[in-house]
Amino acid sequence: MRMLINVAETVVADALRGMAAAHPELTVDVENRVIVRRDAPVAGKVGLISGGGSGHEPLHGGFVGPGMLSAACPGEVFTSPVPDQMLRAAAAVDSGAGVLFVVKNYTGDVLNFDMAAELAEDEGIQVAKVLVNDDVAVLDSLFTAGRRGTGATLFVEKIAGAAADEGMPLARVEAIARQVNESSRSFGVALSSVTTPAKGSPTFDLPSGELELGIGIHGEPGRERRAMMTAREIADFSVQAVLEDLEPRNPVLVLVNGMGATPLLELYGYHAEVRRVLDERGVTVARTLVGNYVTSLDMAGASVTLCQVDEELLRLWDAPVSTPGLRWGM
Amino acid sequence: MRMLINVAETVVADALRGMAAAHPELTVDVENRVIVRRDAPVAGKVGLISGGGSGHEPLHGGFVGPGMLSAACPGEVFTSPVPDQMLRAAAAVDSGAGVLFVVKNYTGDVLNFDMAAELAEDEGIQVAKVLVNDDVAVLDSLFTAGRRGTGATLFVEKIAGAAADEGMPLARVEAIARQVNESSRSFGVALSSVTTPAKGSPTFDLPSGELELGIGIHGEPGRERRAMMTAREIADFSVQAVLEDLEPRNPVLVLVNGMGATPLLELYGYHAEVRRVLDERGVTVARTLVGNYVTSLDMAGASVTLCQVDEELLRLWDAPVSTPGLRWGM
Repeated sequence: MRMLINVAETVVADALRGMAAAHPELTVDVENRVIVRRDAPVAGKVGLISGGGSGHEPLHGGFVGPGMLSAACPGEVFTSPVPDQMLRAAAAVDSGAGVLFVVKNYTGDVLNFDMAAELAEDEGIQVAKVLVNDDVAVLDSLFTAGRRGTGATLFVEKIAGAAADEGMPLARVEAIARQVNESSRSFGVALSSVTTPAKGSPTFDLPSGELELGIGIHGEPGRERRAMMTAREIADFSVQAVLEDLEPRNPVLVLVNGMGATPLLELYGYHAEVRRVLDERGVTVARTLVGNYVTSLDMAGASVTLCQVDEELLRLWDAPVSTPGLRWGM
Repeated sequence: MRMLINVAETVVADALRGMAAAHPELTVDVENRVIVRRDAPVAGKVGLISGGGSGHEPLHGGFVGPGMLSAACPGEVFTSPVPDQMLRAAAAVDSGAGVLFVVKNYTGDVLNFDMAAELAEDEGIQVAKVLVNDDVAVLDSLFTAGRRGTGATLFVEKIAGAAADEGMPLARVEAIARQVNESSRSFGVALSSVTTPAKGSPTFDLPSGELELGIGIHGEPGRERRAMMTAREIADFSVQAVLEDLEPRNPVLVLVNGMGATPLLELYGYHAEVRRVLDERGVTVARTLVGNYVTSLDMAGASVTLCQVDEELLRLWDAPVSTPGLRWGM
């Protein structure tokens, strides 16, 4: 175990204590595991709430703040948060304008957010939900029926967050979130396994010199395993997989996302190859983000997410945002 | 090799191509390896230039932009850039107000920046230099006479960058940079070795279950090796090492910096312990930064840097900054 932790049992609570101390601009309820914008509830504003297993930081807690999420609910590592967390989050951020749950498509998350929606509605909070399922690697997976939700979550949270901050009504914020998800596709590769604190040894066996094409963000199997490929070859394969499922007529947002242990130096080099393929395929790039945003603990590897944007989505993407993990314009 | 690269020989050039494509707000000269603020030279403004071996990203190229560096010169991985790069950078950013070189204390960097300063002065550019040597782990090291320069580089570049953007003259920017360095101390630990692309195997042997206390950012040996410790114990040891050398009477900036492969979840948990020790020791924290800023490729581990600030330094720290790696207020 090469982990900077106390004991596996307290990893999430310890991280929340550390977040609370580092970010006085957020309200971090360590005991109940809810991270909330300090200014919530904002009168007339739709509340945007997400959550999921921990281990993907800065997603989701690092995306709470003006211009993005109103609240986030972190579960145990790679484990769905419970409905009580989401209900607390909804109660904390609802101003009467309702809340939108952004749910990555994993069975536990879907069930628990469904239950939380029922509970919140019983308390008179209007709830809408959007499912994120952008990963084209496989249909059905270890924890998923249908496609998995990965990098597009960042696009959904940013763009719907801007829409909510502009005061758009719940139905409109929901429609925009759905449009972003439907306009996004992802494909990821792993160069190493991930090790969770609870298990303390690699989740799967990936010998050095091999890679897994189409990896999930919890180490779920992808499409195939191969002998190590160059960044150029991986970009060819990954972007092709994405473009088979999404033929952009409009410009795209590009996310080249590190899985956690791959150095930024390599991510930029990988981005050069991703951009080359997009140029070759005639895809116009509107904006680019390179870094570690939707991670898988200490996994080495990277994913590519494209999101096709019209003028409104691009304007909302460019809108100011101020969160620990994503910040510009304020 | 678990690397997302083409070949070791092109890692830096590939990354620069990727940076150029991702950041149209920067001028990236891939061939000559200089990254420059798009608006340089800014009339009347001191140019702030840094550089060093690659492999520590986002340092330094990711800190180029309004409010921070005017230009950066990336060398090969863990290898000093050459004087010609620094000279080009100086010529690109000098508006007649002179340039300040921010130099981490490694023998190669010191020699090459010295030579570049002579060359630039021959061309009529006024040059000042500040040496960053904040790492209290060891005196003299594999590539260093005296203390190594690590996390404080971020504080120097941010605060001196703000001073330069305010239009302060060269002597004042230099004095502020020197004050920041003298007010800063760091201590880092490694939980794994680092692997460079050129070598392709770990730089040093660190068995799982052991850690190196006082590691350098190129894998230089630290103070001692021990059986794995908890985050709580590592924070006790690291903060103690820093406070033995720096007794803050003023509030401090805190940087909890990941070496590269340690998940953000763990870094936040580690920060909770660092903050606990600071509270116990009566040290007041003004601002906190947690994340991967001065990295060592794929090394697992983290460092702590404290910087004692007076009102002026804190004001300059809070000033708006807009770079790929650090951004707020604009």
